[in-house]
Amino acid sequence: MALIRSVFQEELDGVSQSLVDLASMVTESMKKATEALLAAELRLAEDVISADEKIDNYQHELDSRIIDIIARQQPVASDLRALITALRMSADLERMGDLSHHIAKIARLRHPDSAVPQELHDLIRHLGDAASKISEKVGTVIETRNTAMALELEKDDDVIDTLHRELIGKLTDGSWDKGVASAIDITLLGRYYERFADHAVSVSRRVYFLVTGEFAQG
Amino acid sequence: MALIRSVFQEELDGVSQSLVDLASMVTESMKKATEALLAAELRLAEDVISADEKIDNYQHELDSRIIDIIARQQPVASDLRALITALRMSADLERMGDLSHHIAKIARLRHPDSAVPQELHDLIRHLGDAASKISEKVGTVIETRNTAMALELEKDDDVIDTLHRELIGKLTDGSWDKGVASAIDITLLGRYYERFADHAVSVSRRVYFLVTGEFAQG
Repeated sequence: MALIRSVFQEELDGVSQSLVDLASMVTESMKKATEALLAAELRLAEDVISADEKIDNYQHELDSRIIDIIARQQPVASDLRALITALRMSADLERMGDLSHHIAKIARLRHPDSAVPQELHDLIRHLGDAASKISEKVGTVIETRNTAMALELEKDDDVIDTLHRELIGKLTDGSWDKGVASAIDITLLGRYYERFADHAVSVSRRVYFLVTGEFAQG
Repeated sequence: MALIRSVFQEELDGVSQSLVDLASMVTESMKKATEALLAAELRLAEDVISADEKIDNYQHELDSRIIDIIARQQPVASDLRALITALRMSADLERMGDLSHHIAKIARLRHPDSAVPQELHDLIRHLGDAASKISEKVGTVIETRNTAMALELEKDDDVIDTLHRELIGKLTDGSWDKGVASAIDITLLGRYYERFADHAVSVSRRVYFLVTGEFAQG
């Protein structure tokens, strides 16, 4: 059955696809940043740092396109809301890219050492895996508008919060002997993973609200 | 001379005034949060924490109003851009409120002690003063569209970055004897002040771009 679709609908789909692309770029950056951190891989850290500019430009182009669609199509009600929400989602995703970039910069700063002491490698790996899983899922939520999956993200974020608390616990349980500079690195890294996940949840909640008209419970 | 102004222009002015109000609420929160931190004043910390909800609600109401204006007035070109930019500025200002709130929460967590060791009080006071000065200025920049003042903010932000580096230097110069938990507090506090200023600069750059069509140099 042939389906005739409006130019406007094509444009909305294009915006949605670009958000999915952004989520995928950000997931890739997060994976590489964690690997750069744990393996003290300078090349990977540099990859993430240069990919951040690409992400910023991609977002910038997307935002211009969205504003152009609003100006030309003059959408009202739900279509306008969807486009404004797309602008907010692109800002969240761009910020997730920044946070991966921050992680990569700590990896680069401590190279050829790893910024993460050996006994915290497993915990940081868990955080990195959970973070890249959550941004991968956000891409799927944007693409499929699957509200059940959007709710799952709230739980995925709880896992990250728990790992984050565990990480801070390792610094403050009295056994820390790696010095203050390393404690600062770990504090900031923990914060970056946590904020990355917060922005993913924010995107997911925006999709949930667009689809259901209700707020997801956090 | 009587001036007849359009409903639309009145609405745009109302949006601008609400952004100024938000900047003023955020400045107040920042001042109180720093005072709560240094004087270990629980009541002030609680004030900031409850004001954050007020700021969030104010922003939420403002954003709904902006989207409603876009839907009804269907602005194009520069008016649409100004309204989209207002949405972004309100998000920056709301985030600045969150960061003051984070500072107040550290103050509350360590009460009845101060989260800041005595020898860092001056430095944190400088940071707090510089941060509230920058958000005060941002309010004026939004209100007056003074581009010279918008450029000044770039330098004000450099001052905050320098203070922030000095703060981290105090933790890592080998003389730190306040333990890891306190180093974590100071690391996060430094990050919150720095991010607060970053968002202020972001607002100021948006005003600069609206007025001149050019990017302020950072």
